[in-house]
Amino acid sequence: MRTQVGIVGAGPAGLLLSHMLARRGVDSVVVEARSRSHVEQRVRAGVLEHPTVELLRAEEVGDRMDAQGMPHDGISLLFDDALHHIDFADLVGRGIVVYGQQEVVKDLIAARLRDGGTVEFEAADVALHGLTTDRPSITFTDTAGIVREIECDVVAGCDGFHGVSRRAFAPTVVERTYPFGWLGILAKAAPTRDELVYANSDRGFALYSMRSPEITRLYLQVPADEDAARWSDARIWDELGARLAGIPVNEGPLLERPSVTGMRSMVAEPMRHGRLFLAGDAAHIVPPTGAKGMNLAIADVAVLADALEDLLRRGSSRGVDAYSATCLRRVWRAEQFSSFMTSMLHRYGPDSEHGDAFGRALQLSQLRYTASSRAAATSLAENYTGLPHGGPA
Amino acid sequence: MRTQVGIVGAGPAGLLLSHMLARRGVDSVVVEARSRSHVEQRVRAGVLEHPTVELLRAEEVGDRMDAQGMPHDGISLLFDDALHHIDFADLVGRGIVVYGQQEVVKDLIAARLRDGGTVEFEAADVALHGLTTDRPSITFTDTAGIVREIECDVVAGCDGFHGVSRRAFAPTVVERTYPFGWLGILAKAAPTRDELVYANSDRGFALYSMRSPEITRLYLQVPADEDAARWSDARIWDELGARLAGIPVNEGPLLERPSVTGMRSMVAEPMRHGRLFLAGDAAHIVPPTGAKGMNLAIADVAVLADALEDLLRRGSSRGVDAYSATCLRRVWRAEQFSSFMTSMLHRYGPDSEHGDAFGRALQLSQLRYTASSRAAATSLAENYTGLPHGGPA
Repeated sequence: MRTQVGIVGAGPAGLLLSHMLARRGVDSVVVEARSRSHVEQRVRAGVLEHPTVELLRAEEVGDRMDAQGMPHDGISLLFDDALHHIDFADLVGRGIVVYGQQEVVKDLIAARLRDGGTVEFEAADVALHGLTTDRPSITFTDTAGIVREIECDVVAGCDGFHGVSRRAFAPTVVERTYPFGWLGILAKAAPTRDELVYANSDRGFALYSMRSPEITRLYLQVPADEDAARWSDARIWDELGARLAGIPVNEGPLLERPSVTGMRSMVAEPMRHGRLFLAGDAAHIVPPTGAKGMNLAIADVAVLADALEDLLRRGSSRGVDAYSATCLRRVWRAEQFSSFMTSMLHRYGPDSEHGDAFGRALQLSQLRYTASSRAAATSLAENYTGLPHGGPA
Repeated sequence: MRTQVGIVGAGPAGLLLSHMLARRGVDSVVVEARSRSHVEQRVRAGVLEHPTVELLRAEEVGDRMDAQGMPHDGISLLFDDALHHIDFADLVGRGIVVYGQQEVVKDLIAARLRDGGTVEFEAADVALHGLTTDRPSITFTDTAGIVREIECDVVAGCDGFHGVSRRAFAPTVVERTYPFGWLGILAKAAPTRDELVYANSDRGFALYSMRSPEITRLYLQVPADEDAARWSDARIWDELGARLAGIPVNEGPLLERPSVTGMRSMVAEPMRHGRLFLAGDAAHIVPPTGAKGMNLAIADVAVLADALEDLLRRGSSRGVDAYSATCLRRVWRAEQFSSFMTSMLHRYGPDSEHGDAFGRALQLSQLRYTASSRAAATSLAENYTGLPHGGPA
């Protein structure tokens, strides 16, 4: 098989890249280790920042998002036993859309298949070859057990944190882990709020969110190594009630067993190796507090699609040469914002800079300031709703 | 001796309090352990935030400040080998005035003596008594060796970090130390800049500032336990040149031997014990990076003077009952801002959250964001130029 861009991974990054390249007259093939139903049902992030929403609309894959997504004009911070609204619409004139990552994936797969695109699901033993030559290739074993090869001009590594792409070379990897994780639940219960609530309580962080008018998505800060089996439904609801005291919480049956997500920051530099370009979680991970993971992946692709069009249709390497530096500026902005949100909102241990008596008082001062200063609230709002693609940061 | 308010300490806080009380018809006596010439020559802070400037003018002790102080409309951040201007005037419509703390002290002493106020200098063995009674008192030994007593209604503890006032009761003391200090020099050299420059360089933090059109004030980050004797004049100028590369630095003879100031944060809660009220460094210390120390002391006094007027002239305890909580809100805001500035600008060790590869990249992202986002720059500017006295924070 021969194509111009071989794409590893059918998450939002890989699929959107394939879609955008097709619209720019560039052929691609997507190779994905998992099944179509797996990637379409994998519950992940759910907040689309404004530049993501605008891009999906511009690329004509935003119709269902616009019909079913829930536009939010702000978030609330819950601390000092009171709700403090951060009004994005007033502060920065734009908002976010709550729409599950798996819904974005469904829309992009549907668009690719409608347009005659190729997505090879359940591809085993994916391997990359010749990345520093002009003729790189991807090999994999298909569902029939046959080893196949995709020859291409460029490989896009969109295969996430655990994928093979980042490990195909030796980028500098900078990491940070956090001493807690999030216990997440999806409940069949109507949301009582129409915006997200980030709570810093003495008992730990909690996040109130929603996925649809019938489904609530809730998170609790727990130790990083917590066993989710220790959390009965009753204990989960009790703890949510305590940490979210002040807002009503509708209870309902859990739609999946609760699980604990560890929290990590990771950045790989550079994001390019010869003819391989990393995008999304393959190159960087953020803790979920700033809701930036999927949005960063899409921002990478926005840059990469244009850069590859320039390379493959016009022979200009200017875009691909700038790709890594351009993306990393935004990546580090998102890492810093996510770190800021994480350290402001979570309870840390007494030995931590954010958890001793001094650090705890700084957290509360930062929260009060963010809720009372237009400048501070605007800073949060412009980061949360997303700085412009390709802009300075 | 009998007075209404016995004030311990003839720094900016104690002197301004005595001055403001006199203007409100309340008698006071100031007791100071050091000599007049010592306090008038003690070089300390030099940045007056806007509410400080306004207060000194309103209390009619601002004439020499207005004549000789240097109004600054912004500061610059030096990083990535470039200067980035933060334009306070444009961002928040107000600025700062550079005017040495010892000049404020001179002006306040002159005003007190002109108005018939009493300042007992070189008072030894200062001790506080009966603080939880209606008749507290201060005893001290005067320069003639005679033990004297000041009976009063209220004691104001304005005697700094090392004074006796905070130790007269058992407030909760929350502290943080930083793993570095500032080596400060005062040089007879004309400043080459008309605003302060805060530099984050690979070699460590440096601050370019000035005290007059003839005197430059410069600081270098050094280890907390650094011996200033290890720094020859030549080494100091070399290091300043390296860290401030990109701006010209005029060299000149040092006006005093360089010294190393440790960096610490401290907050004592509450700031009141019976009839004793703490103000300024007696109650809280900030690292110098945000230029908040003297300004916080003056903000305390602005609240305390009105509260004591209400108590002693109108019999209302509302102001004094709210004193500690009102001040501490601003104190914690200043602690958080100072901590933010400190962690953004200094080099930390590789084991620190701010000094490992991840933390260093976050510093640079924060600096770039502060220099490129109007909201972030406004947040810095409103904190640096000073939030309104008594306002929410």
